[in-house]
Amino acid sequence: MARWEPDARGRLMLAALALYTERGYEQTTVADIAQRAGVTERTFFRHFTDKREVLFDGSATLQSTVVAAIADAPSDALPLDVIGAAMERAAVSMQDRRDFARQRAAIIAATPSLHERELLKLATLSTAAATALQTRGVPPVPAALAAELGVAVFKVAFEQWISDSPDFPTCIRAALAELSALHRA
Amino acid sequence: MARWEPDARGRLMLAALALYTERGYEQTTVADIAQRAGVTERTFFRHFTDKREVLFDGSATLQSTVVAAIADAPSDALPLDVIGAAMERAAVSMQDRRDFARQRAAIIAATPSLHERELLKLATLSTAAATALQTRGVPPVPAALAAELGVAVFKVAFEQWISDSPDFPTCIRAALAELSALHRA
Repeated sequence: MARWEPDARGRLMLAALALYTERGYEQTTVADIAQRAGVTERTFFRHFTDKREVLFDGSATLQSTVVAAIADAPSDALPLDVIGAAMERAAVSMQDRRDFARQRAAIIAATPSLHERELLKLATLSTAAATALQTRGVPPVPAALAAELGVAVFKVAFEQWISDSPDFPTCIRAALAELSALHRA
Repeated sequence: MARWEPDARGRLMLAALALYTERGYEQTTVADIAQRAGVTERTFFRHFTDKREVLFDGSATLQSTVVAAIADAPSDALPLDVIGAAMERAAVSMQDRRDFARQRAAIIAATPSLHERELLKLATLSTAAATALQTRGVPPVPAALAAELGVAVFKVAFEQWISDSPDFPTCIRAALAELSALHRA
């Protein structure tokens, strides 16, 4: 019988992040993570499929936040305003996890296989956003472009957020303003 | 001693593409490719590091075409015009390989590890384009955004090119026009 484990999931995430940072991702095993978190390997596997999934646990939530925000936008909103507001809502939802986001980004940057995985998740996010825009009646090509712009803004703003600027939604708005400026120039 | 092999490289590429399409990428070995092309495995390895590299052989050329086009643009050209012209030049350079591009895209779409690799190559292209824009004096954030827009335009135009529309440079110009329209709306 499993014993009661207060926030085992949270402790596993922090333990994994600490070990990936200390030893490197490739050199860390699930057994190491479970031990550091003070739980069994079996408990690890009740929460995560594998050691990679600890880092990508938030991707599905991010995607559903973005898709829901696109669906919720006023029906007369323009595609670029819709995607901008969706990315801002995503930033609001991540705002209280800046330390986690920064540490995670450093691990991903140091590990090519994780970098590829991250790019795949962002490409999936872009496809989902484009589909959500098409559901609103935006034709396929502008929907795909607006979705790609949204992900581009997210990436650029994310880098600003974890390096310089503590408020993620502000970074999104600044990147959107820079995007408009490119087109006004 | 190596015997004389007229266009062994070209034959290896075609053989690999045919086998990946027929059997799947994972099920094809270097030995299969060499045999189909009528050369030895040793000849394969004189041209390519591994079976994946056959598909990504053009990435470095694409990147140097884009970077050179950015460097060559008139000094007073605006970032978005610079990146648009660079993507159009890339499209011109790929125009005569539509069949190859289409078949390659189908193989990549069918193989997750190749899809991740393709996304990594496009991310690398974006970073290289951003660096080339910064060399022209564009500040980091607009340079990163313009580069991401360029890659977004390239991706959307590429899909149009291999599915519907035989002229790749025309697809790039159409995607750039759609991008401007999003901002004028």
